[in-house]
Amino acid sequence: MDAKEEANGHSPNEITCTAAVAWGPGQPFSIQQIRVLPPQKLEVRIRILFTSICHTDLSAWQGQNESQRVFPRIFGHEASGVVESVGEGVEDIKEGDHVLPIFNGECGECTYCKSKTTNLCAKFRVDPFQSVMRNDGKTRFLTHDGKPIYHFLNTSTFSEYTVMDSACVVKINPEAPLNTMTLLSCCLSTGIGSVINTAKIHQGSTVAVFGLGAVGLAVILGAKRRGASKIIGIDINDDKRIKGETFGMTNFINPRDQTLVHEKIRDMTEGGVDFSFECAGNLDVLREAFLSTHDGWGLTVVLGIHPTPRMLPLHPMELFDGRTITGSVFGGFKGRTQLPLFADQFMNMEGLKLEEFITHELPFDKIDQAFELLLHGKSLRCLIHL
Amino acid sequence: MDAKEEANGHSPNEITCTAAVAWGPGQPFSIQQIRVLPPQKLEVRIRILFTSICHTDLSAWQGQNESQRVFPRIFGHEASGVVESVGEGVEDIKEGDHVLPIFNGECGECTYCKSKTTNLCAKFRVDPFQSVMRNDGKTRFLTHDGKPIYHFLNTSTFSEYTVMDSACVVKINPEAPLNTMTLLSCCLSTGIGSVINTAKIHQGSTVAVFGLGAVGLAVILGAKRRGASKIIGIDINDDKRIKGETFGMTNFINPRDQTLVHEKIRDMTEGGVDFSFECAGNLDVLREAFLSTHDGWGLTVVLGIHPTPRMLPLHPMELFDGRTITGSVFGGFKGRTQLPLFADQFMNMEGLKLEEFITHELPFDKIDQAFELLLHGKSLRCLIHL
Ligand SMILES: [Zn+2]
Ligand SMILES: [Zn+2]
Ligand SMILES: [Zn+2]
Ligand SMILES: [Zn+2]
Repeated sequence: MDAKEEANGHSPNEITCTAAVAWGPGQPFSIQQIRVLPPQKLEVRIRILFTSICHTDLSAWQGQNESQRVFPRIFGHEASGVVESVGEGVEDIKEGDHVLPIFNGECGECTYCKSKTTNLCAKFRVDPFQSVMRNDGKTRFLTHDGKPIYHFLNTSTFSEYTVMDSACVVKINPEAPLNTMTLLSCCLSTGIGSVINTAKIHQGSTVAVFGLGAVGLAVILGAKRRGASKIIGIDINDDKRIKGETFGMTNFINPRDQTLVHEKIRDMTEGGVDFSFECAGNLDVLREAFLSTHDGWGLTVVLGIHPTPRMLPLHPMELFDGRTITGSVFGGFKGRTQLPLFADQFMNMEGLKLEEFITHELPFDKIDQAFELLLHGKSLRCLIHL
Repeated sequence: MDAKEEANGHSPNEITCTAAVAWGPGQPFSIQQIRVLPPQKLEVRIRILFTSICHTDLSAWQGQNESQRVFPRIFGHEASGVVESVGEGVEDIKEGDHVLPIFNGECGECTYCKSKTTNLCAKFRVDPFQSVMRNDGKTRFLTHDGKPIYHFLNTSTFSEYTVMDSACVVKINPEAPLNTMTLLSCCLSTGIGSVINTAKIHQGSTVAVFGLGAVGLAVILGAKRRGASKIIGIDINDDKRIKGETFGMTNFINPRDQTLVHEKIRDMTEGGVDFSFECAGNLDVLREAFLSTHDGWGLTVVLGIHPTPRMLPLHPMELFDGRTITGSVFGGFKGRTQLPLFADQFMNMEGLKLEEFITHELPFDKIDQAFELLLHGKSLRCLIHL
């Protein structure tokens, strides 16, 4: 550090701000001052206004698998903010723009981005090992004494300022309310997109949603909007019934009252639902979700995170019953291309009750409390104000 | 048995004929006289002219799993023949019609048959436990002294005469050559149909086919007809290279020379094939097939029979790489609706070289020899003349 930096806390292009730094798996966050370097070529520096916490942050913070044991690190990927400055070559985003971070980026130029069949990007797809910027293999976050603090999921939103590749930044309508738009940055897009883009469910479809967290409820909301005739929610927590009904769930099953959930669902739907969504991240649930679809055409979409590398609990011959299984990342949305329009549609939809997703709000320095709420299933989304 | 039957060997409506009866798992076939009862309501009695042997017959004969241990039984499902008589209510098929048996029937009236999304039928789908006629729960095959001989896969074609539900009988153009049409009764429809109906591969697609038996070669033939730009065949038997090339294979890999087949395939295809087909019935091969597709959009179609109830060797998170896996039964064809036209198209295609599938021909009493040839990988199809 040179003298000037010491004097005012940052170089002209460096910002000092507050971040919630994770120093080790499961350790309380350190709310501390960090240095945020200026955005480099095709990068954007964003002032984060709101962030929430999703199970992916939770499992990474807990360090559930090896790829996640990179510390110190700044987690967070569901957020919204305003552009503070942009790096060389960024032309479609400028200071002051309202933006959403997307952990599943879109470079627009790779084979994948040019293919209509996928929303993965060769360069900016989800990679739990990625913890530095791609430009130079370095971090844009430093401790006071210049040690690197690592990035997470292309986003790192648990900081007043973050630097992201512009491929991972989506500009939205400045009139959109950033508090609820935050949810589009992950859970709402994941859930609703899996209904629209991955399953492509149609009017009159029958649907089962396993796990009524924020993603599962977003699936219900999406299914309702697409005209599903029956939407069965499954959760071990009876309290989820009311939330589910708020968004359009027609039936509720608590597996603790019902040993073979798939048989119950088959009974309720003349042989099984057309679509099931696994949002619990549990292999036994995944099997129930698979078996709860109608043979011949049932599709199971996996949305839950299954960190332990166990095998799919399905027998190959079971595929011959005409059931298919697939996964969905970020709801199949190509973020930069499709999300701005989706956000606009959202702004103009009546009766969405998005505020129902935000069960808690807390200041930034209470982030540990927000993690506790999610960990114990007490919150859907806790919106953190930065 | 009454006196009349004893006198002439059969009642007016009963036929005595030769069949290859399996009396126990893996035991040599007994070429013996059996009694074939008349067709009942909506049933058809067929004089089988040709039958061949497929791996499904092989594994059932070996009694690889419990459902298959029903004896005495008449196996066989890939065949062609002429209608001898029809039961009450059969209106679209009559004596003298040329027909193909289909093990995956089509009743035309159930929810499944009325759905455009599946070729499974509620009533006549593949059921290894099914060993009697559905009309009355009885067999139409009897030993000389009236003991039941069980049915197999809705077909039982290892007999000069068989009785089938009309839902499992497809009438074809009488000018079609019944010897090669026999292959449409299973392997050709399964392989080509999986390309056309299940994978829906398109011009320029890249394809990998694991296991170059008759079904695998039919996949190659179908992919070639659909304009695939690269068709990679994989087999542990180098002799399959020439056969593969005959049908349009562009590259051949012997896994014994190449430990990680999927990496080799990814190298050859800029990241993986668009479609892979597993025709080997082996879980390690299935995993290689899955990983050999391009992430983002790759589709693996499982065609091989995996009798041991082991789990799919895939991790749920691997689905998030945008690869999908599905199964295909009878190539996705609705047999009675779609096969007659498919057979017509076949008759009129130039350069199909269907005779290349028939590597051996034998008389009915040499059926044991035909099983040996298939068991030791020496034949593709051995056509048995009845
Ligand atoms: Zn998330
Ligand atoms: Zn890209
Ligand atoms: Zn077969
Ligand atoms: Zn049917």
